[in-house]
Amino acid sequence: MVKAAILGFGTVGSGVYNVLNTNSELIKKRTGEGIEVKYVLDLREFPGHPVDDILTHDFNDIVNDPEVKVVAEVMGGIKPAYDFTKQCLLAKKSVCTSNKELVAKHGPELIKLAKENDVNYFFEASCGGGIPVIRSLNEALIADEIDEISGILNGTTNYILTRMSREGSLFDDVLKDAQDMGYAERNPEADIEGFDAQRKIAILSSIAFGKTVDHEKVYTEGISKITPSDIEFAKEFGCTVKLLAYSRHRDGKYHAFVAPFMVDRENPLYSVDGVFNAIFVHGNMLGDAMFYGSGAGSLPTASAVAADMAQAVKNEGRTVYNNWQEGSIELSPIDTFEGRFFVRIEKSDKETAKRVFGDQTAFKEIALAGSECAFITEVMSEKDFEEKASKLSGIKSRIRVK
Amino acid sequence: MVKAAILGFGTVGSGVYNVLNTNSELIKKRTGEGIEVKYVLDLREFPGHPVDDILTHDFNDIVNDPEVKVVAEVMGGIKPAYDFTKQCLLAKKSVCTSNKELVAKHGPELIKLAKENDVNYFFEASCGGGIPVIRSLNEALIADEIDEISGILNGTTNYILTRMSREGSLFDDVLKDAQDMGYAERNPEADIEGFDAQRKIAILSSIAFGKTVDHEKVYTEGISKITPSDIEFAKEFGCTVKLLAYSRHRDGKYHAFVAPFMVDRENPLYSVDGVFNAIFVHGNMLGDAMFYGSGAGSLPTASAVAADMAQAVKNEGRTVYNNWQEGSIELSPIDTFEGRFFVRIEKSDKETAKRVFGDQTAFKEIALAGSECAFITEVMSEKDFEEKASKLSGIKSRIRVK
Repeated sequence: MVKAAILGFGTVGSGVYNVLNTNSELIKKRTGEGIEVKYVLDLREFPGHPVDDILTHDFNDIVNDPEVKVVAEVMGGIKPAYDFTKQCLLAKKSVCTSNKELVAKHGPELIKLAKENDVNYFFEASCGGGIPVIRSLNEALIADEIDEISGILNGTTNYILTRMSREGSLFDDVLKDAQDMGYAERNPEADIEGFDAQRKIAILSSIAFGKTVDHEKVYTEGISKITPSDIEFAKEFGCTVKLLAYSRHRDGKYHAFVAPFMVDRENPLYSVDGVFNAIFVHGNMLGDAMFYGSGAGSLPTASAVAADMAQAVKNEGRTVYNNWQEGSIELSPIDTFEGRFFVRIEKSDKETAKRVFGDQTAFKEIALAGSECAFITEVMSEKDFEEKASKLSGIKSRIRVK
Repeated sequence: MVKAAILGFGTVGSGVYNVLNTNSELIKKRTGEGIEVKYVLDLREFPGHPVDDILTHDFNDIVNDPEVKVVAEVMGGIKPAYDFTKQCLLAKKSVCTSNKELVAKHGPELIKLAKENDVNYFFEASCGGGIPVIRSLNEALIADEIDEISGILNGTTNYILTRMSREGSLFDDVLKDAQDMGYAERNPEADIEGFDAQRKIAILSSIAFGKTVDHEKVYTEGISKITPSDIEFAKEFGCTVKLLAYSRHRDGKYHAFVAPFMVDRENPLYSVDGVFNAIFVHGNMLGDAMFYGSGAGSLPTASAVAADMAQAVKNEGRTVYNNWQEGSIELSPIDTFEGRFFVRIEKSDKETAKRVFGDQTAFKEIALAGSECAFITEVMSEKDFEEKASKLSGIKSRIRVK
């Protein structure tokens, strides 16, 4: 049995402990060795819990134990996870993590450090919970040039949008309800303002495109301004509103952003509802493919961490190829991106809108929206759109159209 | 550059040649070596085509060339592919294939032979075209016990059902049209009677469950009896008709079958239309996950073969773990499987049906169906259903409900 440690016994950490125990026979058979958790690191006590016997409050117990070959870092955050991860890799222990903040911020350095020490830094669980998209990008799609990724990468916002769409409710009301039910954090900013999805699309794009996409440079809009009338108009146009994380490599230019989108019924992302995540990728040979599953939750995420640990055991002494190589990608500014826009305005502005955006633009009116109407533009750059929109007396909302 | 050979220059073979050439730089970077096609085996001539320079009609040129390390077997069928594959593996060349017939029939023997010779037998392209489901089952989901697979695994039948559903057309008319457009074979039996999906579900189940599922023992029904009125009734019940390949491991029992199913709107398979494939898997830790993409076509399938070839190069001298191990799985007879059934009958049989299937059963009537009506039963075993159904004066159709 290979000895392992789990750093952090929270939602994901306890899940990893569960997966390794529940499926221990199967993991033993498939890895040839099996994995035994020798330490769990947590500041808290767990009296009466089986984990109590292997609990430590001192990271040095783990890093100094040469028997420990693989470590699950499921603490989250940068401090002390960054320092602990580096120390483990330097001590020739593979590290497997669900920590998207750390991967987005220090991924390349940690991947390199793992390689220098003939171990692995795996982070399948950092994007899309249990969905095996990272391993697919790195290994299964190795003969393809991935030129586009679009995904629903945040379960909380998708849950909120799904309920707003089904019930016609206000954003604030659904958020409060989601918080009461544990689907949203008390401090929900990272989810609802898109920062969680921003980190995830940066990680996926770095793997797909082969160099670092800096998450802080990914243009990001959240969902807090979406109203019931946006959602009703979306239905009128045969669409639904989704928070998409998007990146694209075309004609030598890279774009990446996170924003609410109108998604039409033909798009496989249209029917991804509730806390589910889905990641759509396009390869130059493969064409379209999509990965769908539970984007969060203790066991799905833990399943991915445990699978990484099993792969680390199977690949002991050998660093598995990661397509995320050194160097960084310069993103083009969002105002050069071209697309269509849904726009909601006062009916009194309709004639001006027709003059500015073109006679052919089809307007819709719905009872719910009172004095408002909405239209979808032709394809134009973000910059052109902003210029045209500035000629109206005011727009109530604009949402990009996929 | 690692030297490779392609056996068969048909739809998939020419696609493999294309992928390896178009993406050669990228494959070189990711494998560290690159792949050069040294031979293409085909009985035909291709004058003027670049492949003409490397064309051979003699398999011995390939098997006796020690420089050739990886072979794409994309001939299809059992003879001579089976013999060629064995000879290549014995000559310590890895073999990558899209040949589902061969994998379903001789998979375990060829996997074992590869292992004995420290090479690989990869067959990602045999199920779901370019969708990376096999590598995910073998590697990414290594910490999960997969207990259920259900998939749309045949693009031709899904295309036909999608068009019947959209247009209300007759099966025979859509089939003829699909043949004219090249979406269905002149001899369509393998697709429309479910035998193609039967082989694929046997392969996927063998990997998921760890032992051989004999494809010939997988109960199989095709779609040729589906009528426009089945499809209209499906809509009335909020469903669509899909040909599903299904397998399940529960309470120590294994079931596997291929049959048309009513799939409701909440199911992610509901919106998988046209020639697309999707494979839904359930893991005991992961929960639900789905893989979606182009299930056929030259380039998507070739992308998977080329990715296998790249993996063979990266793993030279090392056999990658395959969860499909020795031994075989005994499938339980279909009559022990429990589910609900959609039943279409004459209105005159309605009272008898209520007596036999229970008062609570909800009947639907639609204009198109004239003197017919339809209902969906409660959950019962296939055997119970057959017994009850035999008490009616005759049923027009029965379709399982997912």
